[in-house]
Amino acid sequence: MSTIFSKIISGEVPAHKVAETDEFLAFLDINPNAKGHTLCIPKKEVNKIFDLDDQTYLDLMAFSKKVAHALESAIDCKRVGMSVVGLEVPHVHVHLIPINTMDDMRFEKKDSFSEDELKSIAKSISENVRL
Amino acid sequence: MSTIFSKIISGEVPAHKVAETDEFLAFLDINPNAKGHTLCIPKKEVNKIFDLDDQTYLDLMAFSKKVAHALESAIDCKRVGMSVVGLEVPHVHVHLIPINTMDDMRFEKKDSFSEDELKSIAKSISENVRL
Repeated sequence: MSTIFSKIISGEVPAHKVAETDEFLAFLDINPNAKGHTLCIPKKEVNKIFDLDDQTYLDLMAFSKKVAHALESAIDCKRVGMSVVGLEVPHVHVHLIPINTMDDMRFEKKDSFSEDELKSIAKSISENVRL
Repeated sequence: MSTIFSKIISGEVPAHKVAETDEFLAFLDINPNAKGHTLCIPKKEVNKIFDLDDQTYLDLMAFSKKVAHALESAIDCKRVGMSVVGLEVPHVHVHLIPINTMDDMRFEKKDSFSEDELKSIAKSISENVRL
């Protein structure tokens, strides 16, 4: 069965994309902890990050670093936090979260934005991505 | 000023170490979210993970993957979660947390173990590390 993330990759489910390569995709989290909360995923559908082959894993981490730098440029924050959990969607996803306090990393406090705001946030991040 | 982690590297502050190379160290978190909660750090003292040079960053992530596999072998859990925050100690540290529920990733629920238990947990992890 195709995960929700594979449906985003195929275009079947819409998302606010911020960066894309042949192997990886970055898009805004639909239920963000904070403004600019982004998910980086491999297009290959694998459940657990540490089960990725070494090359794909390192390429995903390199891709995530580039997206994190774009977030630091586009979003006002103290730093960009990174989290990989994966108990809900069985498709590797690296959370990149522009944080100001520890609460931004707990997945409890949530922020909401209009479609227009999300579109504008995604645009400002993608303009800062240097792949 | 030397961070607490640099003092662990130098041996000035004791820690339950689970893996070590010339460049990186893994040891048990002193205030664990869950059994086996481990920190992976570069010996080089850098504040933010995305400020590491690309090679050190990727080598740290490769080291963390090997430690994560050891955790999966040594500790009963659904998977190993990864988190990088860094608001408290200004020295890059990758949290690797053997998780069963989302609460294990929130840094609110804490587990405590005796010195003997920590020693035994560190031993069982280190025996499974393949660097």
